[in-house]
Amino acid sequence: MMALMTQPSSADLAALLDRDSAQAELFDLLRIPSVSSDSGRKEAMGRTAEYLRAKLAALGFSARVDETPGHPVVYAERLDAPGKPTVLVYGHYDVQPEDPVEEWVSPPFEPEVREGRIYARGATDDKGQAYAHVRGAELLLAQGDLPVNLKFLLEGEEEIGSPNLEPYLEAHRDELGCDVIVISDGSRFAKDVPTVTYGLRGIAYVDVLVQGAARDLHSGSYGGAAPNPINALCEIIAQLKDEQGRITIPGFYDSVEPLTEEERQMWAELPHSDEEFAGSIGASALPGEEGYSTLERIWGRPTLDVNGIWGGFQGEGSKTVIAAKAGAKVSCRLVPGQDPDDILRRMQEYIPTLAPAGVQVEVRASHGGQPVKFDLGSPFIKAADRALERVYGRPAAFGRTGGSIPIVADFARILGAPVLLVDLGVNEDGLHSPNESFSQEDYFNGILTSAYLMQEIAAAGKSE
Amino acid sequence: MMALMTQPSSADLAALLDRDSAQAELFDLLRIPSVSSDSGRKEAMGRTAEYLRAKLAALGFSARVDETPGHPVVYAERLDAPGKPTVLVYGHYDVQPEDPVEEWVSPPFEPEVREGRIYARGATDDKGQAYAHVRGAELLLAQGDLPVNLKFLLEGEEEIGSPNLEPYLEAHRDELGCDVIVISDGSRFAKDVPTVTYGLRGIAYVDVLVQGAARDLHSGSYGGAAPNPINALCEIIAQLKDEQGRITIPGFYDSVEPLTEEERQMWAELPHSDEEFAGSIGASALPGEEGYSTLERIWGRPTLDVNGIWGGFQGEGSKTVIAAKAGAKVSCRLVPGQDPDDILRRMQEYIPTLAPAGVQVEVRASHGGQPVKFDLGSPFIKAADRALERVYGRPAAFGRTGGSIPIVADFARILGAPVLLVDLGVNEDGLHSPNESFSQEDYFNGILTSAYLMQEIAAAGKSE
Repeated sequence: MMALMTQPSSADLAALLDRDSAQAELFDLLRIPSVSSDSGRKEAMGRTAEYLRAKLAALGFSARVDETPGHPVVYAERLDAPGKPTVLVYGHYDVQPEDPVEEWVSPPFEPEVREGRIYARGATDDKGQAYAHVRGAELLLAQGDLPVNLKFLLEGEEEIGSPNLEPYLEAHRDELGCDVIVISDGSRFAKDVPTVTYGLRGIAYVDVLVQGAARDLHSGSYGGAAPNPINALCEIIAQLKDEQGRITIPGFYDSVEPLTEEERQMWAELPHSDEEFAGSIGASALPGEEGYSTLERIWGRPTLDVNGIWGGFQGEGSKTVIAAKAGAKVSCRLVPGQDPDDILRRMQEYIPTLAPAGVQVEVRASHGGQPVKFDLGSPFIKAADRALERVYGRPAAFGRTGGSIPIVADFARILGAPVLLVDLGVNEDGLHSPNESFSQEDYFNGILTSAYLMQEIAAAGKSE
Repeated sequence: MMALMTQPSSADLAALLDRDSAQAELFDLLRIPSVSSDSGRKEAMGRTAEYLRAKLAALGFSARVDETPGHPVVYAERLDAPGKPTVLVYGHYDVQPEDPVEEWVSPPFEPEVREGRIYARGATDDKGQAYAHVRGAELLLAQGDLPVNLKFLLEGEEEIGSPNLEPYLEAHRDELGCDVIVISDGSRFAKDVPTVTYGLRGIAYVDVLVQGAARDLHSGSYGGAAPNPINALCEIIAQLKDEQGRITIPGFYDSVEPLTEEERQMWAELPHSDEEFAGSIGASALPGEEGYSTLERIWGRPTLDVNGIWGGFQGEGSKTVIAAKAGAKVSCRLVPGQDPDDILRRMQEYIPTLAPAGVQVEVRASHGGQPVKFDLGSPFIKAADRALERVYGRPAAFGRTGGSIPIVADFARILGAPVLLVDLGVNEDGLHSPNESFSQEDYFNGILTSAYLMQEIAAAGKSE
């Protein structure tokens, strides 16, 4: 069948979706261990970028790999819908480290389907979700021209805080010009509840390094007099929250934007059960800040979590040592009103004041990301709502998400366009965990969502 | 020169000491990575035992390797001094793990001399000190018969709590019968202060394991509601000591034997400077229990130290994860009056009560060791004092040590003989640390000390 000039219907498009090929290509992508935080995997990063460039070029996009001081950016555009809106799809091809690797059922970079799920590091975050848009474009092209002008920007540094994306956006501001930005890099509210996300938390991430004596010491010969940096680190961390689960860093809450009664009401009506939520992660309780519901704590309140800790002897058996050093990775999720630079500074000022005698504490800022919130009245948010209803058969829920995409605020600020967050995964995908996965159904529905979304955005017309 | 029948003098013996051969043989021993806690090094353990057996056999001892359910024991005896005391020398041929291996200047199992010090794992603890007694016997034999009946018991499980030594002592009680037990496995008070040690601390060592959710979680999607086992572990550990540095485990101090005024006075007169002590370990302060001097805190007061901690992401860069599990190794040094089983039980009862909501805490007892204290009036302690004065030219100091040799109490109880603790190393040797070392001078003086000690014990006569 030759390409039609009229808008193809949902049924026509769904019938054209080649699931085998879509999955085989995603597997190719997942096999490349593109861990951006691992300096030993530079080559894999470049190989992933080139795979994406070649695919987009094959679809008729003008596509290239742009080097940065870190990992490269893949940029591609196909601008043959004059008078129609221009859509910029953002995604990232880098993935989280795979450790603890011993907890994976199948190797993290050897994708495998089990019970309808594709298991691999990056399956959902974000290779699977980003590639759904690539295949969405391919699907539209199988029936005709693209209904919008389409640009892809796929970066390789999202999991390390996108240090080079802001300058890239600045440098390519004109080229990247668009009416709306589309990002799929998260989890929808529930399996059967398609979600339009209108807010993201930010982040402030630090390394806390504690030094006691100049060398490791025998705990018999020195125990009772030597400073112990592990005990000291625990004392410091324990003081970062009070009995009510509130963070004790001075000024931490000063600029937090309170939740509105409307939001609290809207979220209270969402189908959520604390018991089921706790059960889904195998937790016996859901501890957190007093006075807020679980959804409010995850979507609308800031947090402090230790993401890693180390020090002394971690091996089999026992070693009677007092370590010279200990360290922890500590991050705060931030909410609208809070500024990551301000919070990083407060962490760097306050944490060392908690050091007990005999240890030195250094707090190194690792990265920060701005929290963001979007206008629920945008026509593009309504277009996404319609596209999702065409796929899932029910209107979208409007929520926020607890995760951070630090560059979303940069996109809005630098490109001056609204950002549509259309999450294609679910929390059960286990993003950032061992055995990360993406259901085949979600992947294929994601491809359809992308195609319908471009049609609905075309129908909504250009932004003023 | 033929062997003399009269007691050789200090000068005669010192002249006969073959330093090159003594060092070469110690190097052979240090090259074998006999890490008892590492189940992958079984073969090295057996090789070390066989090396010692063969050497003692070559010196005319009746020597054998006895298997145990764990690592083997080397036993050797040469009983040709009728009417003279029988001395049992105990030492251990196993060593601590070498990690953090990246902090070693030269590889831990490739001994190297730098500025008069032998660097290798086990150089002082306890291969060097144990082997000084083997070469001490060789030195005496070079001039005549041994002045005492001499037995060696060299075990391979000291660094993992000697789980099989007590049953070995019970099973070989008659064969091991002796008038005095000699152990060199510690550090003397200072480089120029030879020390007779009359007390050791005990130990109670546990693993604290904390479980939050069933799997690692994304700190964005779950932060604010998911239990964080690392934060929880820090809160637990921080509560184990109060503001005065006292341990909060209920009943912990109930049976502690207080220091006598005489001991406090004697220790206060020892040449000790807090400033120099802190300087020697590169510490800016010497924190500990209020109301006690540094020596009192190390020798005569119990402690609690975290020896290792782990959880979450420890790699390069950042990972926004809430770990499912965290753990720590926690040990208490115990003093006379305290019972390790009682303290282990108190730790296992108390620590889980500190668990915040959402986490499960398991406290696994790893090992315990009895604290001990000896009679300062023993004739064998006086014999050691004389032997040390012959080597160092000054009388010995009487102190305790903060370390533990858990089986010392078993020796005294099962064999019914007093234990002489004659430490040949110094704290600067860095036992249990990277770059462990033993000065060549201390090793050679240790050989002389052993030979003189046997002569002085022979002069003291059999115990009643």
